[in-house]
Amino acid sequence: CYTTECMLCDVLPAMRGGSTFTSCGVFFLQMGWGDLGAFGEPSKETPNLDQMASEGMLFLDFYAASPLCSPSRAALLTGRLPVRNGFYTTNAHARNAYTPQDIVGGIQDSEILLPELLKKAGYTNKIIGKWHLGHRPQFHPLKHGFDEWFGSPNCHFGPYDNRALPNIPVYRDWEMVGRYYEDFKIDLKTGEANLTQIYLQEALDFISKQQASQQPFFLYWAIDATHAPVYASKHFLGTSQRGRYGDAVREIDDSVGKILKHLQKLGISENTFVFFTSDNGAALISAPKQGGSNGPFLCGKQTTFEGGMREPAIAWWPGHIPAGGVSRQLGSVMDLFTTSLSLVGLQPPSDRQIDGIDLLPAILQGKLIDRPIFYYRGNEMMAVRVGLYKAHYWTWSNSWEEYSKGIDFCPGQNVSGVTTHLQEEHSTLPLLFHLGRDPGEKYPLSFVSDEYQGVMRQISAVVQQHKETIVPGVPQLNVCDKAVMNWSPPGCEKLGKCLKPPKSDPKKCFWPH
Amino acid sequence: CYTTECMLCDVLPAMRGGSTFTSCGVFFLQMGWGDLGAFGEPSKETPNLDQMASEGMLFLDFYAASPLCSPSRAALLTGRLPVRNGFYTTNAHARNAYTPQDIVGGIQDSEILLPELLKKAGYTNKIIGKWHLGHRPQFHPLKHGFDEWFGSPNCHFGPYDNRALPNIPVYRDWEMVGRYYEDFKIDLKTGEANLTQIYLQEALDFISKQQASQQPFFLYWAIDATHAPVYASKHFLGTSQRGRYGDAVREIDDSVGKILKHLQKLGISENTFVFFTSDNGAALISAPKQGGSNGPFLCGKQTTFEGGMREPAIAWWPGHIPAGGVSRQLGSVMDLFTTSLSLVGLQPPSDRQIDGIDLLPAILQGKLIDRPIFYYRGNEMMAVRVGLYKAHYWTWSNSWEEYSKGIDFCPGQNVSGVTTHLQEEHSTLPLLFHLGRDPGEKYPLSFVSDEYQGVMRQISAVVQQHKETIVPGVPQLNVCDKAVMNWSPPGCEKLGKCLKPPKSDPKKCFWPH
Ligand SMILES: [Ca+2]
Ligand SMILES: [Ca+2]
Repeated sequence: CYTTECMLCDVLPAMRGGSTFTSCGVFFLQMGWGDLGAFGEPSKETPNLDQMASEGMLFLDFYAASPLCSPSRAALLTGRLPVRNGFYTTNAHARNAYTPQDIVGGIQDSEILLPELLKKAGYTNKIIGKWHLGHRPQFHPLKHGFDEWFGSPNCHFGPYDNRALPNIPVYRDWEMVGRYYEDFKIDLKTGEANLTQIYLQEALDFISKQQASQQPFFLYWAIDATHAPVYASKHFLGTSQRGRYGDAVREIDDSVGKILKHLQKLGISENTFVFFTSDNGAALISAPKQGGSNGPFLCGKQTTFEGGMREPAIAWWPGHIPAGGVSRQLGSVMDLFTTSLSLVGLQPPSDRQIDGIDLLPAILQGKLIDRPIFYYRGNEMMAVRVGLYKAHYWTWSNSWEEYSKGIDFCPGQNVSGVTTHLQEEHSTLPLLFHLGRDPGEKYPLSFVSDEYQGVMRQISAVVQQHKETIVPGVPQLNVCDKAVMNWSPPGCEKLGKCLKPPKSDPKKCFWPH
Repeated sequence: CYTTECMLCDVLPAMRGGSTFTSCGVFFLQMGWGDLGAFGEPSKETPNLDQMASEGMLFLDFYAASPLCSPSRAALLTGRLPVRNGFYTTNAHARNAYTPQDIVGGIQDSEILLPELLKKAGYTNKIIGKWHLGHRPQFHPLKHGFDEWFGSPNCHFGPYDNRALPNIPVYRDWEMVGRYYEDFKIDLKTGEANLTQIYLQEALDFISKQQASQQPFFLYWAIDATHAPVYASKHFLGTSQRGRYGDAVREIDDSVGKILKHLQKLGISENTFVFFTSDNGAALISAPKQGGSNGPFLCGKQTTFEGGMREPAIAWWPGHIPAGGVSRQLGSVMDLFTTSLSLVGLQPPSDRQIDGIDLLPAILQGKLIDRPIFYYRGNEMMAVRVGLYKAHYWTWSNSWEEYSKGIDFCPGQNVSGVTTHLQEEHSTLPLLFHLGRDPGEKYPLSFVSDEYQGVMRQISAVVQQHKETIVPGVPQLNVCDKAVMNWSPPGCEKLGKCLKPPKSDPKKCFWPH
C-alpha cells in the first residue's frame, strides 16, 4: 500500500484581511522520488506536476515518516512519528506494519488529528481516497475530524470474489456505497478502472461547493491508483512509455492539473495552499510492470534507505510562494500538520511531542531550519539524517528467507555491508554516508576519518536527545483477526452487501519485513 | 578521459536573409545524465544549465557514440561511428580505447571533419580544450579544419613531474605555450586550478572578436574539468553539496551561463545555435569523491549500458527553438555533425557512410525521426536501441581480474546475467529490455513472450542492414610507443621545455576493458 498525497488547504483566514476565502489541501499519493519529470524521470510524462513545480517550490530533501503507507498517513495527520501515535508493531524487531483489513487496531481518540483542529477553526474537512487508519467503527474518519469522506478504508486489494473474504468497501461519509471489483470495477486483466476519474470529480465538486458557499476547506486527496494492482481509465491506458504504471501516473498528473486549474478558474488559487507528496518510496518489488522509480536512490519502499523514504514534494500557492523555487530544507510529511496549523493561525498541541515543524519560513522566506530526519521500522530507529549526513544504526533490506522467495526491495542493487539480509546493528559504529557526494548510499565513510569522528559526535547528541523524548504509543498494529474484516460495513444492509463474519480469533499479525 | 561538450555554431547564413551574423557551438563536456538539476540531480546545483534547458530543448534520449572519450569526439567531428572513422582497437575483443600520449594513431586526413566543411562555407573554427584525436604533428587540429586552438591534445593526466615522462602540453594554435602542472597549475591536494576560468575567457574573447568582425564562427568548447583529477578555481572550491566533483560542475555551469549571456549581450543569441552534451557517461569508478551521476541508469563510463552512453543534452537557440521543449528523439553526438551542416545549408559528404542525422526537424518542428542507436566497444556491436527497446548482443562490465582489483564500472549495481564479468555473447537470443518500463535495464523480457518475438524480428532486420554498411576504418588505437609522447611539441624550444624522447619501441597497446 503506497500512495501519493495531495493536500489542499484553505489558508490564512487570519492573514486574509477581509472577505477573501481561503483553503488548503494535500495530494498524498504513491509515487517515487524519480517518478516525476521535474525529479528526472526519463520519460518526462508529468507535465502538470512539472508545471506545479515551476509555479511553486520543489523540495529535494523531503521524507515520509515511514517506509510504509499507514504509519506515514497517521504521521501526516497527527504530526507525530508512528512510534508515538501507535502506528507500529512490536510483534518482531524492526518490522513494517500497516492496516490490512484483518487489523484490529487503528487511530486512537487520544491522538489529535489535523482535521480535528481545523474544524474548530471553521474548516470543512474532506478526505477523498484511502483512509488507512483503521476500518473498525471507532476509527471512521468522520469520528476523527473529517466532515466528508469518499473512498475506502484499505488498499484496493482483492480477494476479488467477495465470498471467502470481503472485497474492500467504498464509503460515502458514514456508509458504504459499494465494493471494489463489484460496484467499483477494476479490470485486473486490462487494468481499466474509472476510479481516478471518480475521485477527481469528487474533488472538483467539493471545491466548487466550498467556493460557492464561501466556506474554507481542507481537502486530503489520497487516491491509490499507482498501488498494485495498478489501474487507469480507458483514456489513459496504453498512453505511457512506462507501461501501466506510467498510464496511472499520467492520469494522476492530469488530475492534479485539473484540480489546480479548477482552483484558478474559481479565483481561489491565491488563497489555497497545495502540497503534493508521497507516503513512501516507489515499490520496486512491483517493477517493471507496476513499479515506479526512486531515481538515483538506494532500494525502495519497505526500506530505510533513501529510496524507501525520500519523496517527491511540491508546494504551490500562487502569489505567495515564489515560482520555480527550490528548497533544500529537510522536510517530512509530519511538517504538513504543523505547517497547515500555522497557515490558519493555530498552534500545535502543547501537551504532547509534535515531530512536524512549520515549513512556512522555508517556503515563504527561503530559510533553512536545522532539524534531523529519523528513519524507523517499527519502534526501532534504523537511521538518522543530520544535514547532509545519514547514519545507519541498523541495516536490513529483508530476510534471506523472503529474499530467496524472490521478494527484493533493492532489485539490481547490492551494496556490500549496507543492503543486508540479516538485521545488522551498527549502533556502536554507525554506517555514515554523505548524501551530497553519495546520494546512492554506496560509500560509507571510513570510521577512522576525522570527518566520521566529528560528524558522529554531533549525530550521537541528536540521537540521544531524540530518544529521551520517545514515549511510545500503544502499538496498534500487533493484533489481526479475520472477524474484523469489512464483512458488514455500515450501509451494507441497504445494498444487500452484508457478509457473515467468522468467529473472532485474534492473533499476532505476521510482519515479515 | 570524459568531458562535456559545448558547441556554438554561427547558423544559417543561407537563411538569415541579409546582414544578420550567425554562428554555432557545441559544449562537449564530461558529465553524466544525472549530473544536471534538469535531469534530476538531487542537489540541483546547475541553475545555468537548467535555465538553458528551460529556454531551449531538453533531449532525454541522447547518446554518445562510444562509452569512452576519444572515439566519441572523433564521431562528433566526423558524423561517423568510431568503427568507420578508425577510432577503435582490434588488439583484443570488444575493448574501449582512447588516445593516451603514447598512442601512435590519430584522425586520418581522409576523414572529413565538421570544421573542414564549415571552413569552406566561410566559418572561423575554434577548439577550446581537449582535442583528443591524436597528438603527433599530422593530427594537429589546425590540419583538420580548425583555425584556432587553445587547449591540450590529451587529458590532464600526470605524470606531474615532467622528467621520466612529459606532462601534457597546452597549445595556442600551432605551438605549445606551457604544460599542465608546470605553467598551468593544478594543485592535486587542494584541487585548485584556474583552467576553467582560462578556457571561459578564451571563449568569451573569441566570440567578441568574431562578433566585432561580423564573421560567422564555430566554437567547440571541450574542457575536461570534471575528469579526474577533478579541479575547480578557488571561488568554486568547497561550494557544492557534492564535493569536489560538484565544485567543478558548478564552475562549468557558471561558465556556460556566462557564455550564453555573452551571446545575448552581443545581440547574437538568436543567430547562434548552441548544443550541450557529453562524450560518455559519468565515470562511476571515480565516485564518490570525483565521480558524477548517471541518474537512474545502469553502470557508467566504459560500459554499453545506459549509464555508459546516455547523455544529458540541451539545444538552445532563442527565437527559433521553443522554450521549455522536450524531445524524445533518439539522438547521437554524431547528429551534431549533420545538424550543423544543415544549419549552414551544407550537405553531408555523399562518398561515405554518415551515421549522424539532421536533428533540425526534431528541434524546430517537433518531428520524431525513426533511427536506431548502436552501442559499440571496439569493432563489436554490443547492443542496439530501436524505439523504446534495447537488445544486448554482448554483455560485459569488465573482467574478473580487473574487478578483483577494485575496478568497478557498476558500483552498488548487480543485475544477474546482465552486468557480467565475462564477455557473454547473446547474439542468438539477445537480452531485450523495454527502456520505458525499465530504464535501469534490470528486467530482460522473456524470450518466449510475443513481445520479445515481435520486437526482435524488427531489431534483427535493423542490425543486419547496419552490418552490411560497415566498412571498418584502419584502426588507429592499436599501437603505442613511448617515443611519440609529448616530449618536444612544437614551440618547446622557445620555452626551454623540450624533453628527449626515448628510442622508438612500438607495441600493441593494452586495453583491459
Ligand atoms: Ca482525537
Ligand atoms: Ca580531412
